[in-house]
Amino acid sequence: MNDPLTYRDAGVDLDAADRAKRSLGPLLDAASDENTLSGLGAFGGLYAVPRDLAEPVLVSSADGVGTKLKVAFLTGRHDTVGRDLVNHCVNDILVQGARPLFFLDYLATGEMDEGVVSQVVGGVAAACRENACALLGGETAQMPDFYAPGEYDLAGFVVGVVERARLVDGSAVRPGDRLVALRSSGLHTNGFTLARTIVFDRMGLGVDDGFPGEGASAGDVLLRVHRSYLAPVWPLLERGHVRAMAHVTGGGIAGNLPRVLPDGLGARIDCGSWRVPNVFRQLAEGGGVALPEMYRVFNMGVGMILAVSPSREAEVLRALGDEAWSVGEVVDGEGVELVGGE
Amino acid sequence: MNDPLTYRDAGVDLDAADRAKRSLGPLLDAASDENTLSGLGAFGGLYAVPRDLAEPVLVSSADGVGTKLKVAFLTGRHDTVGRDLVNHCVNDILVQGARPLFFLDYLATGEMDEGVVSQVVGGVAAACRENACALLGGETAQMPDFYAPGEYDLAGFVVGVVERARLVDGSAVRPGDRLVALRSSGLHTNGFTLARTIVFDRMGLGVDDGFPGEGASAGDVLLRVHRSYLAPVWPLLERGHVRAMAHVTGGGIAGNLPRVLPDGLGARIDCGSWRVPNVFRQLAEGGGVALPEMYRVFNMGVGMILAVSPSREAEVLRALGDEAWSVGEVVDGEGVELVGGE
Repeated sequence: MNDPLTYRDAGVDLDAADRAKRSLGPLLDAASDENTLSGLGAFGGLYAVPRDLAEPVLVSSADGVGTKLKVAFLTGRHDTVGRDLVNHCVNDILVQGARPLFFLDYLATGEMDEGVVSQVVGGVAAACRENACALLGGETAQMPDFYAPGEYDLAGFVVGVVERARLVDGSAVRPGDRLVALRSSGLHTNGFTLARTIVFDRMGLGVDDGFPGEGASAGDVLLRVHRSYLAPVWPLLERGHVRAMAHVTGGGIAGNLPRVLPDGLGARIDCGSWRVPNVFRQLAEGGGVALPEMYRVFNMGVGMILAVSPSREAEVLRALGDEAWSVGEVVDGEGVELVGGE
Repeated sequence: MNDPLTYRDAGVDLDAADRAKRSLGPLLDAASDENTLSGLGAFGGLYAVPRDLAEPVLVSSADGVGTKLKVAFLTGRHDTVGRDLVNHCVNDILVQGARPLFFLDYLATGEMDEGVVSQVVGGVAAACRENACALLGGETAQMPDFYAPGEYDLAGFVVGVVERARLVDGSAVRPGDRLVALRSSGLHTNGFTLARTIVFDRMGLGVDDGFPGEGASAGDVLLRVHRSYLAPVWPLLERGHVRAMAHVTGGGIAGNLPRVLPDGLGARIDCGSWRVPNVFRQLAEGGGVALPEMYRVFNMGVGMILAVSPSREAEVLRALGDEAWSVGEVVDGEGVELVGGE
């Protein structure tokens, strides 16, 4: 009964945790900025509020990567999911007009594989740099008999800032405003439980098999990184051209666009105004998924929607180039009517 | 092959997710404050930077509850882990002198049990109110075939603020400074993988069995809520009496106190200066765990340590009452020397 027991016997290796933590130091350093006042090892990360705003409002969001992680486990490629996470969070605050200040991650795993941890956090740090966002800290938790061997969960949390007078809250939206869609890179981080069932069970593909209609493997197609819209959209926000903005995540276009429209206003979207990317058409066919369900679960090629005044639409489309197209308009009413399409 | 497939068939119930989300609205409302500018449904939570600081520094931390969650699963009691999470995070920024502004949670589960979700988030919201912290948002993720039935993971993120000139960074610490310990309520949220092995495997207890030496069940003893030290410590911070402060979490006293001491300074702690609570003595005996390992894994009754000038010690101890006691001093050197004790 009383054989001496240690923490390690019980499944937690504090030394491995320390090593993993130390290896993350350079990643945090590389993703810091002039407002970062703390380094690795501090209990809390320190970040000075930027002094160039009259009335700063913090905008914050938490998110995870969902079961897209399972595709990372199957492929053994762990450097993309951190980018999905950061970009997803950055988009969630961008829709309110905020630019990111800092990010923290939460990585929970059964056993501490230092190589995997550093790939995952490396992806987080790379995306932070791309979004001009400091990686301020995070938590790496060892939870034996919680996660299957080789598996982990990953969540993140972003804090951004916006001048109060420049908050994008949809209040300026009027009937007749034009809706501009921005191209997604693929599934982004939603609908993976359904997509995995279709691709791996129904279509019978392995992650290394070629995906129909793509010059890429199923794993690569499913892991395509969630785009950040900060770079293309920021100049439009600075010019005050955006009246509302919706990030198309779980729930699809109809589940997200109404979140940013004022009461009494809805939207009409012409689904024939863009070509739904191959991956979604293959999923619909492979799973026999009805089109309304497809639009409810997936982004269908549209990662972000902007509402702009009709007089600004041409300028906005010109600025965004072939990344964007006109998809519909704001109407009196409620909800989103999806018309046309295949 | 082509039986029509829906998201629900694949294991994700968007309607249940919507219902769970809506049920959280009143919890968020009740845990908002005058700086909260957003409600449920916004992509990002909005929080105005308080205007009463000359040079505000944000202090942020991410954490989880670890495998203490397993005890919640075994007991079916889900209203305490959210409090552990918030209090842990609040303590992590308190040590740098910050008071919390807002909190976000991440709850990931295999199947969406609305009752469990609302118990968990109810605990988060209650602790936010107790810490005068807004619950600004969060993410509830459905991840089938990720978590075992009835299980979930829970992480949280806090953002607090401190006047830059009042940052507690240990730079004022001098040799001879006194170390004051604050009582923990029990295990807090660390060491549970070892504690569960001892209690359930070695001692052979079930969660409803009485815990030796306590008038409480094993489940209740293990679930005792991680204390927040904001209320007792805040008045001392306002008076400028605290030179450094360490939250005793994973790694114990010796793993955490050095994190806040300047280079070239260490600490000597007299472990005979307090009575190690029964729960730790039972764990050591039940698991045959060596004392050094006990002090490396558990808090041993000390949840927080303050470094104060010798001239302030009596006043600090008086203010904290029987919650605190003098345990040692800052010395020239490195690391923590634990002397005395059983």
